[in-house]
Amino acid sequence: MTDFQKELGRIADQVDQYILAQLKPRKPNTLWEAATHLPKTGGKKLRPFLTINTCKALGGTEQSALPVASALELIQVFSLIHDDIIDNDRLRRGVPTVHTKWGIPTAIVAGDLLHTKSYEILTEAAILDPVILKVLPQLLHEMNHGTIRICEGQQMDEELETISNPSESTYLDMIERKTAALFEISTAMGAILATTESSKIERMRLFGSRLGIAFQIVDDILGLVAEEKELGKPVGSDIREGKNTLLVIHAVAICSKKQKRIIMKALGNSKATLAQIRTATKEIVECGAVDYAHKTAASYAREAKSGLLALPSSSSRDLLDDVLDFVLSRRY
Amino acid sequence: MTDFQKELGRIADQVDQYILAQLKPRKPNTLWEAATHLPKTGGKKLRPFLTINTCKALGGTEQSALPVASALELIQVFSLIHDDIIDNDRLRRGVPTVHTKWGIPTAIVAGDLLHTKSYEILTEAAILDPVILKVLPQLLHEMNHGTIRICEGQQMDEELETISNPSESTYLDMIERKTAALFEISTAMGAILATTESSKIERMRLFGSRLGIAFQIVDDILGLVAEEKELGKPVGSDIREGKNTLLVIHAVAICSKKQKRIIMKALGNSKATLAQIRTATKEIVECGAVDYAHKTAASYAREAKSGLLALPSSSSRDLLDDVLDFVLSRRY
Repeated sequence: MTDFQKELGRIADQVDQYILAQLKPRKPNTLWEAATHLPKTGGKKLRPFLTINTCKALGGTEQSALPVASALELIQVFSLIHDDIIDNDRLRRGVPTVHTKWGIPTAIVAGDLLHTKSYEILTEAAILDPVILKVLPQLLHEMNHGTIRICEGQQMDEELETISNPSESTYLDMIERKTAALFEISTAMGAILATTESSKIERMRLFGSRLGIAFQIVDDILGLVAEEKELGKPVGSDIREGKNTLLVIHAVAICSKKQKRIIMKALGNSKATLAQIRTATKEIVECGAVDYAHKTAASYAREAKSGLLALPSSSSRDLLDDVLDFVLSRRY
Repeated sequence: MTDFQKELGRIADQVDQYILAQLKPRKPNTLWEAATHLPKTGGKKLRPFLTINTCKALGGTEQSALPVASALELIQVFSLIHDDIIDNDRLRRGVPTVHTKWGIPTAIVAGDLLHTKSYEILTEAAILDPVILKVLPQLLHEMNHGTIRICEGQQMDEELETISNPSESTYLDMIERKTAALFEISTAMGAILATTESSKIERMRLFGSRLGIAFQIVDDILGLVAEEKELGKPVGSDIREGKNTLLVIHAVAICSKKQKRIIMKALGNSKATLAQIRTATKEIVECGAVDYAHKTAASYAREAKSGLLALPSSSSRDLLDDVLDFVLSRRY
């Protein structure tokens, strides 16, 4: 196990503990059970890892960063619960989604509860910790703005499914909001806890944003080529749902008419057979879409790396560097 | 027009202007249109009225109270949008609900957006106004806690529909969260802006909470006996949805077996005919449930009135007194 993996695991445990202590069962039990369902399934906690290590790399403490990181993790969880309702996804991290288990009404409210809880964690931590209190309006500003962009990205994602032949820039604009916004505020908020130098905060914001774009592109690659047990959700969901990912956009733009016919037969077709999904996937891969997407992700990761120049050399900076490799090479 | 009506109208205009300035159309247009749909329909703005007049009655300014009141109004709007999805209500304030017009996915996200916007309004106002900044953690604490209770109340409301013969206290416990929590923080947050005296804040919290309970009981009466054009939603929705309101609980507890059969035939029966709804309504009224509910509401209003003793005599205090009469006597 590398130092990076150890640290990722350690921070995940810390954040899990912090969050579950905030979500102790109470009445109405069903709601609180539904709200703790996803937090109990673990998850990598990549965003909290970014907040904590950005803060430490700029001279801040893990103690101040942990509640902020946990608040951001709950923003992630609440948006996943609502996204799963919207996409009608039945599995997440290998377990039934909240609405599958408790129904849509409870899932909507559980998401709203966690959304509010993220603000509560931040508020109560600020009341106890003068380091957080001092920058509370700035932290809130980031969290509000980031969450608004996540909402916009979610809507753009839905709309992207209905556009024929969308451009790459439409896709990138969408993932910059839907996915990268949360990475961006994870690093920015970690930096704000540690420094008042806006050039450093902005560099770390860039790092988070570009890393987030790379992360989503790799996620889309895995959504296409990984198997169910790696993904924690059924093979071909993205194609069935008609997601216009970078891979689909690229493949459709450069493939033959025959290939395009095969791809379009499965894309957005909820009744596509597994055979149709597999054939469409094969054509997308044969167009070189996976290579193209990997290269694009790598290029964003390089841009992210330049953001790290804001940081003095330290073990936390090395860990942030490791995140880039991890994101590019992850298999699930 | 009374002074109270004039002031209610004036504050509603102020809050509408404030909120709509924060929700200027931008991309993705559909989402922002969906988010402004309910704010554009007006609404009485009773909760903002409470925040502003509580603040003024304790020596604070309307300038500081307006953004806080507007943030609270957006908490109300976001929860209405999500509630309408949950209850599958098609009309609200006489116009189609957000999910009816834009679909459930966009309505979920529009709700999330307004939920975040309420925090954004509060944050940005605090950055500009030292009065708000000074008590920002306290205001956030109230808003978080109140919103969590609204979520709990929403869940309890759903669960109440599935309980046979629920008690009055189960109903009161539910509306204390679902409805009264927001009234409670509306007055508490107005007070926090104006005073550090916790006894005054707690008195005004009690005023808001008890007023909120009275409001919901009257709302349930209107839900039973008012006509569609007064309600802005179809007659008999509450009965069709199987809402165990105070009226239903009381009627079922004291009526004859024959009356109970008639009521239960319509309650929670989505296919009930209008004739069945009208007959069930008639039986509930004949049991004296409306009188009973009115008396209960009046008793909470009296308790609320005792909270006003915290306030020195002023025109704002008189206006808060007027709210009690307004809530008890409102016809739609």
